[in-house]
Amino acid sequence: MEPQLNQEVINTAALHDGPIETDAVIVGAGPVGLFQVFELGLLEIKAHIIDSLAYPGGQPIELYPDKPIYDIPAIPVCTGKELTDNLMKQIEPFGPTFHLGQEVSVLEKQEDGRFFVETSKGTKFLTKTIFIAAGVGAFQPKLLRVDGLDKFDNSQLFYRVKNPADFAGKNLVIVGGGDSALDWALNFVAEGPNKAESVILIHRRDGFKAAPANVAKMKELCDAYEMQFIVGQVTGYDEKEGKLTAAKVTGADGITRVVPLDVMLVFFGLSPKLGPIAHWGLDIERKQIKVDTEKFSTNIPGIFAVGDINTYPGKKKLILSGFHECALAAFGAAPFIFPDKKIHLQYTTTSPKLHKVLGVESPVFD
Amino acid sequence: MEPQLNQEVINTAALHDGPIETDAVIVGAGPVGLFQVFELGLLEIKAHIIDSLAYPGGQPIELYPDKPIYDIPAIPVCTGKELTDNLMKQIEPFGPTFHLGQEVSVLEKQEDGRFFVETSKGTKFLTKTIFIAAGVGAFQPKLLRVDGLDKFDNSQLFYRVKNPADFAGKNLVIVGGGDSALDWALNFVAEGPNKAESVILIHRRDGFKAAPANVAKMKELCDAYEMQFIVGQVTGYDEKEGKLTAAKVTGADGITRVVPLDVMLVFFGLSPKLGPIAHWGLDIERKQIKVDTEKFSTNIPGIFAVGDINTYPGKKKLILSGFHECALAAFGAAPFIFPDKKIHLQYTTTSPKLHKVLGVESPVFD
Repeated sequence: MEPQLNQEVINTAALHDGPIETDAVIVGAGPVGLFQVFELGLLEIKAHIIDSLAYPGGQPIELYPDKPIYDIPAIPVCTGKELTDNLMKQIEPFGPTFHLGQEVSVLEKQEDGRFFVETSKGTKFLTKTIFIAAGVGAFQPKLLRVDGLDKFDNSQLFYRVKNPADFAGKNLVIVGGGDSALDWALNFVAEGPNKAESVILIHRRDGFKAAPANVAKMKELCDAYEMQFIVGQVTGYDEKEGKLTAAKVTGADGITRVVPLDVMLVFFGLSPKLGPIAHWGLDIERKQIKVDTEKFSTNIPGIFAVGDINTYPGKKKLILSGFHECALAAFGAAPFIFPDKKIHLQYTTTSPKLHKVLGVESPVFD
Repeated sequence: MEPQLNQEVINTAALHDGPIETDAVIVGAGPVGLFQVFELGLLEIKAHIIDSLAYPGGQPIELYPDKPIYDIPAIPVCTGKELTDNLMKQIEPFGPTFHLGQEVSVLEKQEDGRFFVETSKGTKFLTKTIFIAAGVGAFQPKLLRVDGLDKFDNSQLFYRVKNPADFAGKNLVIVGGGDSALDWALNFVAEGPNKAESVILIHRRDGFKAAPANVAKMKELCDAYEMQFIVGQVTGYDEKEGKLTAAKVTGADGITRVVPLDVMLVFFGLSPKLGPIAHWGLDIERKQIKVDTEKFSTNIPGIFAVGDINTYPGKKKLILSGFHECALAAFGAAPFIFPDKKIHLQYTTTSPKLHKVLGVESPVFD
């Protein structure tokens, strides 16, 4: 389920022939990546921000958009969605450019000291600094592991629904027991332009990690023969003339049934992968990038790491620690971008210069 | 002007015969000191909190209660007052005890490893850990420096108004050009139970660091002969039979005038003093306490320093950095309080244990 954003998000793909030249690329649009935009912005550094998900917000939006968070300082309670919305509002004055639904696939140091960055969608950058705010890594759908099934990827086997209309009128098998599986099952059973010909939900047990109301609704629809629910695991498939024709589903009773289908939708949740970052020559310890606590710099000058992905003595994986790290990393990066400028700490409450970059009015004193 | 608090603040003085035995004493009730309560609370550590001001909130409340702050993460804009109110709400579940209007005057290490702490009001503690969140130090009123005048302190010379009724019907000289001087001048001119016999405002120049509306109002009142404004500096005084009878005020013209009075109120603002902390044997560098970045411990085990008062490589005096420091200091302190317990990081979004200490309900999963 992709949350709706109030903010306009620019989603650039490979629109550019040459690389985008910039001062800063942020990898990861979770809370810490978003706040990195703010801290860079206060120092008048513009940023491009890349995320593998199709929307900003990262882990809190992906894993708990509606669950309360209690430990963001001075916010007694907020949801992942509210946290993201507030951060998006806070960084608005700095107009970051979002490059979503893509991962960084290439990183190369250039002779001029800059970094060449390319994403899985072919977006290219030449940047003076990089901020890795990748949390636990890029979120990837967990795959259904059945030998040979992957050849139907994106033709008849899908892990995400991009355009529900593609599945209208089809015989669907939906696999999974979480909110996404339930939501999409109900969605395709419902009357409307996207209604499927048939919907069969398959889950390994008769218990769901999903909104109880949706589970009840699904069971009602099964009782009314409008959809089916089968307890079992997909253990094989049938094909005919290169087309997937059925799933083989093994139940708790050990019996394998053949379930005919046009399309299989699998929702096993997302799992984070460090991905290509692991091969950039960074000093990595147990999947964490080692940084200093002065500038949150990695072992490669110009590359900083903030938030859950970094490690240092005392590190706690707290969002509020990531926020602090962003501030110090921004000051650490400034000399790469403004080598001749001395950067002083100014306060947003009193600095007319910061009021100007924030786009707010300075109070007038007599 | 002391802001009104929505929260009930327990203001204990020397009510106790023996010292209060506790796990943690926090010195300073600014934003960082308040958030230290929260981070300790999550680890089930109860705290007592001391501040020299008569109310929590520290520098933002004292210096800019109504001015916007833009760099608290996920809060696009808030005032010092809102920041304090939100933090007070956030720490409510942990019921800290406030000891306000007093400074720490004594600190002694005990043989059993604990610290004996005594405040200027005689409140005594025996505590396992201390968190210095004293910002730039304890705020003290800036004094009017005229030889011998200090002998009238708190009899006819005041730097704070505790009870306005004490000054009703008196001939007042109010010295200063900021909001406090203007506000109190208007307050004592106004009809009502606290109306003074006469009010003379003295400021070194005809220009004010105060709300323009109040400056205009003051000038109107002067035009209507309801009060007087004199440009000049208090350079001496007259006394008779041990009582202060007049201020000698030297104008820009070099002429000194005698201004009769019953009471002199001086509002030159507050200035921070490190105070007795300077003599505790802490490793101090340019008025900052040196700490490590793993636990934010000082050179004295069991004493931590967080927020603007500490220093380490990369330190920026940002509230958001103080928040991070509180989190790591709480984990650093836990072994002093629970020597045999292994402390794991838990998340407020998912931990039923943290939900219990926060007093919120845990969601139920199928």
